Order: sequence, then structure tokens, then C-alpha cells
Amino acid sequence: MKIWNEFVTVQTKNRQEIVDLTPRISQAVTKAEILEGIALVASMHNNAGVFIGQEDEPLHRDLLKWLEGLAPEREGYQFTKGESNAGAYLKNLLTGQQVALSIEKGKPVLGPWQRVFFAEFDGGRPKRVLVKVLGE
Amino acid sequence: MKIWNEFVTVQTKNRQEIVDLTPRISQAVTKAEILEGIALVASMHNNAGVFIGQEDEPLHRDLLKWLEGLAPEREGYQFTKGESNAGAYLKNLLTGQQVALSIEKGKPVLGPWQRVFFAEFDGGRPKRVLVKVLGE
Amino acid sequence: MKIWNEFVTVQTKNRQEIVDLTPRISQAVTKAEILEGIALVASMHNNAGVFIGQEDEPLHRDLLKWLEGLAPEREGYQFTKGESNAGAYLKNLLTGQQVALSIEKGKPVLGPWQRVFFAEFDGGRPKRVLVKVLGE
Repeated sequence: MKIWNEFVTVQTKNRQEIVDLTPRISQAVTKAEILEGIALVASMHNNAGVFIGQEDEPLHRDLLKWLEGLAPEREGYQFTKGESNAGAYLKNLLTGQQVALSIEKGKPVLGPWQRVFFAEFDGGRPKRVLVKVLGE
Repeated sequence: MKIWNEFVTVQTKNRQEIVDLTPRISQAVTKAEILEGIALVASMHNNAGVFIGQEDEPLHRDLLKWLEGLAPEREGYQFTKGESNAGAYLKNLLTGQQVALSIEKGKPVLGPWQRVFFAEFDGGRPKRVLVKVLGE
Repeated sequence: MKIWNEFVTVQTKNRQEIVDLTPRISQAVTKAEILEGIALVASMHNNAGVFIGQEDEPLHRDLLKWLEGLAPEREGYQFTKGESNAGAYLKNLLTGQQVALSIEKGKPVLGPWQRVFFAEFDGGRPKRVLVKVLGE
């Protein structure tokens, strides 16, 4: 069994932003030289998620607006590390924080419309995403 | 390490439907001849999810009604691929799109009330679910 | 490839409670004597979840209050196994039921603010969480 660990760094300009991670995951899998196996892609932060979705700018605006409706940045949270951050934390729970991908023939297996995205909810600082590949 | 990949096809009659995948996952694990390991069960679509839940018809109605409340099929989305689809996409984020299962003695390990379900939110077309088994 | 399976039991006093599982996961990984690999941490129940979050008591109160708003314990569910339980089931879908962790140098890899939590939504009875470790 071969194992590869890599941290991908994501730096956004905006407080909230959706970033396509797929090319960087593919690169990590290629570097890992693992042809068959599994990859774990996991955010190392509680205010930024990882999810599988579709490449469509208007849909991403729909998504961010919808998340804001369900988990708003507002006053009234008790979280001691800053109120606005609590909204980011709750949004992150909704998108999820990690995905596992099948690796076949040295590539991540995704549906034709699927991409892996990083969802930043408290941006402006570099964030780390673990890409771990196990296989042969 | 042994690796098995299989795509399970799900075709629903209704636009929204919850389908028990557990028997087909068990079959895939049996075919894989892997006794100890892990299985990844992942929807290859952004408008259909995979989740662990309970076999109970009324609860599934509760679930679909609740999802409709949080992520309605309605006008007003910006998604360029069709408005009704955006609701499906958001519902899918709530249920999740994939689960990992422990395999022991050639069978998926689930709690006594747990089953693996496919959640279709934009049905009427065949959909694919990856079952990947890794182990020994 | 080495494989380790362990069930961790969680017993809460309250109906709803968030319990830090991280020390018990670390112990399981140590006992597994697996230095590099992956761990699956999965609730064996549909009314109790597992998620990655932050150790902050006020934030946990925010989280439980927010979940209650989105997936309330109320009358009107159709679920045949008891109405209050349907709310627990829906909350569980929001937090998620399982996480995968990278294991490096015999320890789970988490961000500096990340911990693994058990989220009990229908407490008072012992619950089981599977910790499965695969690796070398």
C-alpha cells in the first residue's frame, strides 16, 4: 500500500468564496503515483468546507445566498471567538468539510458534472486542505 | 490490498424518491470477495444524494417535506441549467452525496436501524452510484 | 495492510449533548498500532451524529439552538417510531453521521482548532460509535 499526504493552500480575496479544487487534487494524485485507491480531501478549518458540486457561477451565488439564509452572519450568537465566525461555522456544517474520492487509472472518479470545491466562509487568510491518497 | 469498483444504476419513477441501496451494496461487497476493509458509496450526480437513515416510509415523507421547506423547488434561483434543478442541488447538499462503510466478515457494518439510501431529487433518468471496496 | 475495529460507547445525561470524541479516537489509533493510514469514525445510530468542529461551549449552545430551529422537536411528523425522534433524525442529517481522518505518525490529523464530536439528539441510552483504522 502506498500513501501520499499533501496540504493544498487556498487563499481567497473575498470573505465568502467558492474555489474549484479539482485540478489541484488531480495533480496531487498524479504526484502520488497511485493508480487505484482512494483520496480523502479534508478542510483543516471549521469555517471553510469541502463539497462536491457543479461548476456554475450563478449556482454558486444561489448556494451562498441560500446558506446565508439558513446560517446567517448576524448578532446574537454566543460563540466566544467572534459572532460572525459562528455563521461561518454553521455554513460549514451544511456544506460538509470533507469528501472521499475513488481513484482509478491515476485519476479521481467523478460524475460528468461533478467537481470538488472549497467553500470559504471566513476568508482573507490562507487555509489548508489535506489531500491524502491511499492505494497502489 | 484488493480493490473492487462497481456502478449501481438507480432509476426512479418519481421526481423525488428515496431508494434503499443496502441490498445492492451488500451484493457488491460479496462479489468483491473482500472480507475486511472499507466501502465508499458515492453518487455520481449533484442532484441525487446518498445517506444513512432508517427504513420507515412515513419518516421518508417527513424527510422529503422537510427538505422541500429548507431547499424549495421554486423560481428565483440564478442557476443557468434550470431553476427547478437548483432546489435539487441544495437538497443534495443537505443529505450528503456519499458514505463510507466498514466491511467486516464480508458485510457492511451498520447499526441495527441503519440502511443506506439513495435520495433522488430530479428523477426520471437513470443515475449512477459508485460502490468501491478496498481491503483484504 | 493492518485493520483495527473498535466500538466506543457514549452515554449522555441530557437528551441533546455534544461530546468530544477526540481522546478516545486517539486511544483507538494508538491501540491499533497503525502509523500511517485512515480512520473512519461512524455513528451506529440515526439520531446521533459525528462531526468535526470546535471546542467552545457557547458555540455548541449556538449549534444546538440553530439545529432546533431548522429541525425542531415538534408535533406533526409522520414518523411511526415517535414524533420527537423525527426531529433527532433530521438534526443528525444536518451534522452528518461519520467522518474520515488521516492518520500520520500514529495520530489523527486535524487542524489546530478541530476536534471530533459526537452529537446526541435522543440521549439517555448508551450509543455506539465505530472507530475503524486501516493502514500500516
